[in-house]
Amino acid sequence: MEELLTQLTEELTKRLFVEMEASGRHVHVTSQQAQTLFGTDLTPKRPLSQPGQFLAEQRVSVVGPKGRMEHVAVLGPTRPEGQVELSLTDGVSLGLRPPVRLSGDVSDTPGVTLEGPCGTVTLPQGVIAAQRHIHMTPEDAKLQNVKDGQIVRLKTLTSRPVVFEDVAIRVSPKFRTFVHLDYDEANACGFRPGDLARILP
Amino acid sequence: MEELLTQLTEELTKRLFVEMEASGRHVHVTSQQAQTLFGTDLTPKRPLSQPGQFLAEQRVSVVGPKGRMEHVAVLGPTRPEGQVELSLTDGVSLGLRPPVRLSGDVSDTPGVTLEGPCGTVTLPQGVIAAQRHIHMTPEDAKLQNVKDGQIVRLKTLTSRPVVFEDVAIRVSPKFRTFVHLDYDEANACGFRPGDLARILP
Repeated sequence: MEELLTQLTEELTKRLFVEMEASGRHVHVTSQQAQTLFGTDLTPKRPLSQPGQFLAEQRVSVVGPKGRMEHVAVLGPTRPEGQVELSLTDGVSLGLRPPVRLSGDVSDTPGVTLEGPCGTVTLPQGVIAAQRHIHMTPEDAKLQNVKDGQIVRLKTLTSRPVVFEDVAIRVSPKFRTFVHLDYDEANACGFRPGDLARILP
Repeated sequence: MEELLTQLTEELTKRLFVEMEASGRHVHVTSQQAQTLFGTDLTPKRPLSQPGQFLAEQRVSVVGPKGRMEHVAVLGPTRPEGQVELSLTDGVSLGLRPPVRLSGDVSDTPGVTLEGPCGTVTLPQGVIAAQRHIHMTPEDAKLQNVKDGQIVRLKTLTSRPVVFEDVAIRVSPKFRTFVHLDYDEANACGFRPGDLARILP
C-alpha cells in the first residue's frame, strides 16, 4: 500500500509539476579559450543536473566597463563559442545590459573580458541573461503535453508565488526535466531547492 | 480632439493600469538612531514618489554576519522603529534571511548593525524583504475596484512579463498610486522606469 502510494504520487508529480533549479552566473568557453585562460582543458569538479554538464574546477573573473566579478563558475564541457550568463542584477554591477536570450543565441549581444590565472580572453559578444526555460525529456514533455520550442506560462509553488510568462520548452533525450531560472527570478518567487512549478494549461 | 484623446487615454490608464516603481535596499531609522548615527536629524536630498517621503542626504553601512553593504540609502522622515528593507539577493550577501513582510511588520525578524559616520546602532530586529504592494489613492482604488488590505494578482507589461501573486493593496489619501517591487522582482520581469502593470480581475 505504502509503495503503491509513493509510486502513484511520483507518477502524478511527473504529469503535473516540474522541479525548479536556480542557475547562478556562469561562463562557457571554447577549448582554445580554456587553454588561454587556464593553460589546460576544463576539469570537472562536480556534475550538474543536465547529463554530461559539469561545474569546472577552474574559475574566471568577468570584467565589465563598470565592475568586475571574481571566482565566476565555468561550466563544461567546452563549447564552439564563449558565452557569459548573468542576471540583470549582475549586468548592472558590471555595467553591461545583457539581452534575455536562450543559451547559444548570442548574435548582437555585448562582449566582455575574461581573466584566468594564465591569460585573458576578450569575447566580442556572448553576454546574455538566460531566458527562463524548462529542460524536458521527450517522455515528460509528452506527459505534460508540450513541445520543443513552445512558450508556456509557469506557476511557481513557492513562498512568494509568481506566474512566469514566456517560458521556453526545450525537449531532448539528453536532458533531465528541470525548470531553470536565474537568481533574480528565483528570489522574486522565493525559490528554495526542491520547489516545484506547474505548467499552466 | 488631440486634447480629448489625451484625456481619454489618461482616464483609461487610471482604470486599467498602475505605474510600477522599483525600490532599492534602504533603511528607516528613529530620530534617536539618526542622532547616534549622524549626529543630526535626517536632511532631505530629494522627494520620493510617496508624498512627504524623502531620500536623506545621510547614508549608512549595513553589517550582517557574512558581509557589509556601504552607502545604503536612508529614507525619511524618521519612524517609531528602525527597519532595513533588503532584497533576498542582498540577504544572501549579508548572511541574513529577511522574511517577506509589509513595511512596519517587523516582529520576529532578524536584527542587524548600522554604521554611520558618528556612531553605530544595533537593531534587535527589523530586517525584511518588502512584500510587493500597490500604494493607491482612495479614488484610484475605487476606479480599479479594490480595497485596502486586499491581495491581488498583478500582470506586468514589461519585456519579461510576469504575473505576481500575493500583491498587497494599500489605500490611503496620503499615497500616490504606484506598484512597489524590489530589485529581484523588477529584474525578474525586465522592468524599465515608466512600465505599467495591470491588476488582474
